[in-house]
Amino acid sequence: MTLLFPPRSRPALIEAFTDPKGFGDQTLRDRRPDAIELLGGIPDPSVLPTAELAEATARVLARPGAPSLQYSRTEGIPALREWIAAREGVAVERVLITNGGFHGLAIAVQTVLERGDLVAVDNPVFPLFLRGLELADARVLPIRVGAEGLDIDALAAELRAGARPAAVYTVPEFHNPSQSSLPTARRRELVELAEKYGFVVFADDPYRELRFHGEPESLAPFHDSDHVIHVNTFTKTLGPGLRLGWIVLPERLIPDAVALRSRQDSHSSTFVQAVVAELLTGDVGVFDRVLGGARALYRARAHALAEALSASGSFDVTVPDGGLFLWPRLTDDSLDADRLAAAASAEGVEYQRGSFFPSGPGTDADRHLRLAYGDTSEELLVEAAARLARAVARQR
Amino acid sequence: MTLLFPPRSRPALIEAFTDPKGFGDQTLRDRRPDAIELLGGIPDPSVLPTAELAEATARVLARPGAPSLQYSRTEGIPALREWIAAREGVAVERVLITNGGFHGLAIAVQTVLERGDLVAVDNPVFPLFLRGLELADARVLPIRVGAEGLDIDALAAELRAGARPAAVYTVPEFHNPSQSSLPTARRRELVELAEKYGFVVFADDPYRELRFHGEPESLAPFHDSDHVIHVNTFTKTLGPGLRLGWIVLPERLIPDAVALRSRQDSHSSTFVQAVVAELLTGDVGVFDRVLGGARALYRARAHALAEALSASGSFDVTVPDGGLFLWPRLTDDSLDADRLAAAASAEGVEYQRGSFFPSGPGTDADRHLRLAYGDTSEELLVEAAARLARAVARQR
Repeated sequence: MTLLFPPRSRPALIEAFTDPKGFGDQTLRDRRPDAIELLGGIPDPSVLPTAELAEATARVLARPGAPSLQYSRTEGIPALREWIAAREGVAVERVLITNGGFHGLAIAVQTVLERGDLVAVDNPVFPLFLRGLELADARVLPIRVGAEGLDIDALAAELRAGARPAAVYTVPEFHNPSQSSLPTARRRELVELAEKYGFVVFADDPYRELRFHGEPESLAPFHDSDHVIHVNTFTKTLGPGLRLGWIVLPERLIPDAVALRSRQDSHSSTFVQAVVAELLTGDVGVFDRVLGGARALYRARAHALAEALSASGSFDVTVPDGGLFLWPRLTDDSLDADRLAAAASAEGVEYQRGSFFPSGPGTDADRHLRLAYGDTSEELLVEAAARLARAVARQR
Repeated sequence: MTLLFPPRSRPALIEAFTDPKGFGDQTLRDRRPDAIELLGGIPDPSVLPTAELAEATARVLARPGAPSLQYSRTEGIPALREWIAAREGVAVERVLITNGGFHGLAIAVQTVLERGDLVAVDNPVFPLFLRGLELADARVLPIRVGAEGLDIDALAAELRAGARPAAVYTVPEFHNPSQSSLPTARRRELVELAEKYGFVVFADDPYRELRFHGEPESLAPFHDSDHVIHVNTFTKTLGPGLRLGWIVLPERLIPDAVALRSRQDSHSSTFVQAVVAELLTGDVGVFDRVLGGARALYRARAHALAEALSASGSFDVTVPDGGLFLWPRLTDDSLDADRLAAAASAEGVEYQRGSFFPSGPGTDADRHLRLAYGDTSEELLVEAAARLARAVARQR
């Protein structure tokens, strides 16, 4: 049969997607079989509650009529939403269950942004968020991230100069990649700007529960405003493979987000929601026990890696207050960072180059390395630091 | 602080969504506490493998390093994709794991359709698909569904007359709501039209494994064409609450669907995928045992309801060959179907009115009732038929 009509072009939605480059394309590289991989923010299996999840599953599936295997509401099951709402200190109606943090960001992007909108983002930035922004073919306005998180003064200056972003994206606690946290007072200023200029803050907060030094910053500025979507997840605490997270929405955005979600995948797995709700409510102390174990482990690993790198003399290192990343800076400004990454790979250590993270000019991100220490033992972290030091030495 | 800028309008994506009416708004109605609900295509919990799922979960979570709690590929985990590919008889690369059948349809809609495209759909149609189409703000071309499924001659006539749909949506086996199946020869004709006119067939096939009479129609016409997305799910066989399904894509559409998915929710739950893969591969016969139990149960229920309705004299009934729905027609053309639904509700039986299902004019759908018998016992189905007969009698 003859083809009478030419092939259709791809929809504009799909056409706006770009091929991954830099961050995310490393699977193409050849690696040593004994390579130590410090690539992703992956929680260590030893601090995930595997036995407790198996027990919770058995209890959930033993319930008469197996409600965990049936349809449920788009917003999420009541038991899980109520637990989250109580922990977050928000009304349960504002909690929408998602398939993890990235899904929460995608829902925020699609609910708030018109195609082609301007979005102010961290610089340096979590690169996968920029991929998510392609769902709205958004334009990016980079805003510097400093030692106190997103530079609110720089954002305010852009706004005064006429920039009109529809949203501002930031990781407010244990910034990915640069470790810093946005102080409570700065959060208030950010929210005031959002309310004044009419944009929505996408506060991406997956590491918040993994604090091992100091006191947490307040969530009140985010939760008290109707110009913030606060994105969170069980990914870093109970395991990425669950694909379970939540967003706290302002009331005015709830119907739109639910309408979107009900047209895309109806609702998150009732089964996963029921298992996690049973885990969290069946044993009231379990979540804090899990967090206690995780924080102790990640603190020890962060210190081990930071100290080993520091001792080598090749890196300026700040021990983070939490999270899963170290962002050391090369002390020698004459080193070629790309050649260093290749040399490190040859020595058997893989990491994300700092040059993968800028969202615009004006940072020294290319002088940094992003090292993820969550799922690597102290012994191997020390070995990784030694390999990095050898790779640096080979550059001289 | 003053609001300097007017509130932004909603994105066009969200603005295209309409409020549910008819199908899906029934939760607003008052019901009798003893109401028999024949509303949704819900599998009976007694034929879902709850104990086997709990055992599979325990085995999966006992694996060293708990890989089921970690990130996995957007396409799905190999063990599950391979099982599905073998059962479907397609290359594993063409299988994309989804969060259930509706999610598969949403991915098809977003991957293939430009906003405002024309889509030919079943008439009558599964109404929630029309909600999914709102993701692309698509226009609808209704095509009659008869005793042999989608009327391919009517579609061909529309195409000859100049209609240029970007896609054609149909439920090819045990059509929802009208029970009919598209014969293999007609599937071939549909695919030939797709290849000739350059549209994509969205074949929505959630009931296929629930055949309890006759022989299945062939899937080869769908799988042999690069103009078909075949949408399937474990919803009706292992439970809707898992939110686990798959689509078989033509090779040319795989990169776009994966790129979309990787920007929306990354991947389906590794945990759910691993549990179901362990269930299906750990005990080779388990899926067919589950299906055997389900088919026997639904056959008995379909017959019980069909016979009780038939005996009342108020309905023309055809016993279906499979699936979860009966589509009886009122014998008395003078009855007011909306008043009947209200009377039935007063008698204590809830169903979906036939008038909720047309996608355009020209059907007698409003003379039908859609009765879902999957999760109601034979005894209650017979009682429901008696209540319906009383409701009919009260209209005379």
